[in-house]
Amino acid sequence: MIGSDEITSIRSPRVKAARQLARRSSRQRTRLFLAEGPQAVREALAWSVVTELFVTSESWSRRGELVAQASAQGVPVLAVSGQVMAELAQTVTPQGLLAVCRFIDVPLQRLTEAAPRLVVLLANVRDPGNAGTVLRTADAAGAGGVVFSDSSVDPYNSKCVRASAGSLFHVPVVAGSPLRQATAALRGAGMQVLAADGGADRQLDGLEADGALGRPTAWLFGNEAWGLPADLLALADEAVAVPIYGRAESLNLAAAAAVCLYASARAHRTSPG
Amino acid sequence: MIGSDEITSIRSPRVKAARQLARRSSRQRTRLFLAEGPQAVREALAWSVVTELFVTSESWSRRGELVAQASAQGVPVLAVSGQVMAELAQTVTPQGLLAVCRFIDVPLQRLTEAAPRLVVLLANVRDPGNAGTVLRTADAAGAGGVVFSDSSVDPYNSKCVRASAGSLFHVPVVAGSPLRQATAALRGAGMQVLAADGGADRQLDGLEADGALGRPTAWLFGNEAWGLPADLLALADEAVAVPIYGRAESLNLAAAAAVCLYASARAHRTSPG
Repeated sequence: MIGSDEITSIRSPRVKAARQLARRSSRQRTRLFLAEGPQAVREALAWSVVTELFVTSESWSRRGELVAQASAQGVPVLAVSGQVMAELAQTVTPQGLLAVCRFIDVPLQRLTEAAPRLVVLLANVRDPGNAGTVLRTADAAGAGGVVFSDSSVDPYNSKCVRASAGSLFHVPVVAGSPLRQATAALRGAGMQVLAADGGADRQLDGLEADGALGRPTAWLFGNEAWGLPADLLALADEAVAVPIYGRAESLNLAAAAAVCLYASARAHRTSPG
Repeated sequence: MIGSDEITSIRSPRVKAARQLARRSSRQRTRLFLAEGPQAVREALAWSVVTELFVTSESWSRRGELVAQASAQGVPVLAVSGQVMAELAQTVTPQGLLAVCRFIDVPLQRLTEAAPRLVVLLANVRDPGNAGTVLRTADAAGAGGVVFSDSSVDPYNSKCVRASAGSLFHVPVVAGSPLRQATAALRGAGMQVLAADGGADRQLDGLEADGALGRPTAWLFGNEAWGLPADLLALADEAVAVPIYGRAESLNLAAAAAVCLYASARAHRTSPG
């Protein structure tokens, strides 16, 4: 089925073009990104945003249904050697399937129009793995959107896409939004903006007990290492700390986000709102 | 202060010996591990478990108090070049301070004697970053101990030590315990064993509402990718799922652990127990 058509050189123009999407500047220019593995490829095909599918011969037989689905959508399917796939996927254990996809982020207005009860704002989050994990957690907690500020990592970074485990395709994502504009728009849509800040006096449990988490809420999370500076904290209605009961100085971003987002999810499901 | 004594070769016997501690087998044989950065070194000095301290000239002046404290404890302090430190620390941005430390894990019995209300059991957790993050979260949630099963990553793995952000020194850690023995001992100490399992029928929120989280609890967490197999689930009193409100298939380990541990911490602080 593949035979002589298999691309074995990383110098092939199509491979080179796809490899360039590892760079943010190339993604921005082409508005294309890479999604790797059967789960992400399945999601991307469901969105009809795949422009090209690279497949190793092993995956061609194991994932025939995805290859057939791509072909049915008129997507060019390119057989590549394991070595070419390893170059494209840039992972230790490439999964044999990699799709070039069109951007799927939405304008901020689309997100606010849907009147979500729970939204995540990522400010200055620089580690793509962290950003992807928070996106996945936001999805699990039932969030109606995730906003990546203009000073945060790009949601289409391969590590972010991978860490999101498909959630990039589940939750409306706004990319590169100025934070001031995002908080204003979300507040305009009736949401309170809560900043997660380990140093805050107000504790999450107190807020939950007071019923203050029942309101539609946008959670603002800051940088992994240095949190939220004063000018960003000022954009929030309130700063809230996850309580530390032991001797840890702080929680890491993914853990703090999980605790905050699930507190909101619980409150939204028990409050009359 | 340093001058001609600075070690500039990675072939120096002391540097070579320390570098070997990157390997689990060397750590097991010598019962020594590496702790990097001012925070970890400060903790290790407080425990009096440092056997050797490597310092770059820059850190020697910036962290003089730690160097002085080490000297006062009779710990050999070795000046090394930036290149040697980079080799030792195996991080992209080495922090200029690295201590060789004696193991600090405790026997299982020491942990159960203290009658903790919250304990974490790591079964088959293979990623050291994940394990360290869960250790940090356990510390933050006020856990009285973390047990690394014999099939989990080693708590002294450098990435685990780093991800724990000092929590390895805050929480009693049991290393390499057979899981069957650990669950039996914890149950013998009056704890219920709850397995975090995305596929479980019983939901965390239901357990919390029923007051079942008020009891002393050991949380069992499985492998990042394949969770807990049936034979390990059988070691728990109950399997519990963190609810998924959106379209994510699951939470990642660190996020699931944060939600479970903080649910227990809340329950312990509001229940009469």
